[in-house]
Amino acid sequence: MTQTIENNRVRTKTIQVSEIFGPTIQGEGALIGKPTVFVRTGGCDYRCAWCDSLYAVLPEHKAEWASMDTRQVFAEIQRLSNNTPILVTLSGGNPAIQPLEELIDLGHQHGYTFAIETQGSVAQPWFSSLDYLTLSPKPPSSKQVTRWERLDRSILYATTNKYDREIQICLKIVIFNEEDYAYARSVAERYPALPMYLQAGNHTPPQQAQEIDISGILDRMDWLIQRTIADRWYEATVLPQLHTLLWGNKRGV
Amino acid sequence: MTQTIENNRVRTKTIQVSEIFGPTIQGEGALIGKPTVFVRTGGCDYRCAWCDSLYAVLPEHKAEWASMDTRQVFAEIQRLSNNTPILVTLSGGNPAIQPLEELIDLGHQHGYTFAIETQGSVAQPWFSSLDYLTLSPKPPSSKQVTRWERLDRSILYATTNKYDREIQICLKIVIFNEEDYAYARSVAERYPALPMYLQAGNHTPPQQAQEIDISGILDRMDWLIQRTIADRWYEATVLPQLHTLLWGNKRGV
Repeated sequence: MTQTIENNRVRTKTIQVSEIFGPTIQGEGALIGKPTVFVRTGGCDYRCAWCDSLYAVLPEHKAEWASMDTRQVFAEIQRLSNNTPILVTLSGGNPAIQPLEELIDLGHQHGYTFAIETQGSVAQPWFSSLDYLTLSPKPPSSKQVTRWERLDRSILYATTNKYDREIQICLKIVIFNEEDYAYARSVAERYPALPMYLQAGNHTPPQQAQEIDISGILDRMDWLIQRTIADRWYEATVLPQLHTLLWGNKRGV
Repeated sequence: MTQTIENNRVRTKTIQVSEIFGPTIQGEGALIGKPTVFVRTGGCDYRCAWCDSLYAVLPEHKAEWASMDTRQVFAEIQRLSNNTPILVTLSGGNPAIQPLEELIDLGHQHGYTFAIETQGSVAQPWFSSLDYLTLSPKPPSSKQVTRWERLDRSILYATTNKYDREIQICLKIVIFNEEDYAYARSVAERYPALPMYLQAGNHTPPQQAQEIDISGILDRMDWLIQRTIADRWYEATVLPQLHTLLWGNKRGV
């Protein structure tokens, strides 16, 4: 949406928002343990078999999402963070299908930093404005197909046309089985310069399971550690989802 | 011990070793999730009330420790890592009371990297040879007294007389209660440039408790997250001990 004048106010871009919550800690990946406010956008071009946030993905949940403009989203971030600059994590759904550049620029003006979590299926030139880009291409167990040229372009956009700001890029792969592990290996071979985070999957995601199976998740984590080490893949980092261990499938934490 | 010629071999420094194990993942702090081999040295100048590795601290366990020279220690690291360079974590006890400079230099020649975990009560000029220095001054609940000038000197040594190698320094504080939290705040004020990791303590350490209380540890972690966020201390990173969640009080993992 282009800027238009309406009631003497500059109308800013409209973002589909599933939820804005926090501050809490980032539970996974390179920024694990960092206090952050999450902006979870609505809508996704993927339908991962084990998706843990279908409420932000499926069109039948659209009525639960809010259409908010940049200023409204940032006002809510400021309210939640008590007007103190914090890391903002843009998640989804796939946040890359939303017009988030204005939000990032506005936040930067107030000292906030921005991380995005996206599968890399939609590359945006504004990735270069981010502070952290986590690309999480989806392994075979997701039943999705990786379009490599789009992942390439996501990295290209993130590393070109930059301002004075440094961007940190990393890869994160959720792993459920041996096939997923082999996929992660191949991704690492394609992008040897990027730090790789391996994440034990939750096979009991909300909306798809009666109860979360923490012990099963820990077993899978244990397997993933042993698998990675047996392979002498010492450059990888193996992490669980802390929020799942702490709070199970609860939302908004 | 100085170098002496014995049986036509150069005798290298003698290190008191409690255990060498791995590869496993680092369970805590800045390098959480990274594959590593642990060298746990024997002996400590502290007696923390909640120490989780008394077997590497108390003199009555000395008979279980091995006196190994640098080459023996490195040979064991190479064997465990399958001769593939990996991160080596020097832990204890207090590893800073051991002559580890030769080991670090030898490992570097073979592509290995080195992290140390120490309370900063004994500052060593060879800290400058490290790749990662984690200083974990002990809060009031430990019943130990922090000698600040030694902590200052540890940082000074780590950042001076460096070779071409970059060193990453961070602080890590184990927190059990409000007093410990206030201590962590004061440490952060003293060293504002250093990344701070807050760690939920294990109040049921081995040798002091019948059984590990995972649910109590997770409750304390939850409290620590809320406490940090309520304080708007957004620069801190809050992490649990992953190895405790995964494997309880088991040793050698």
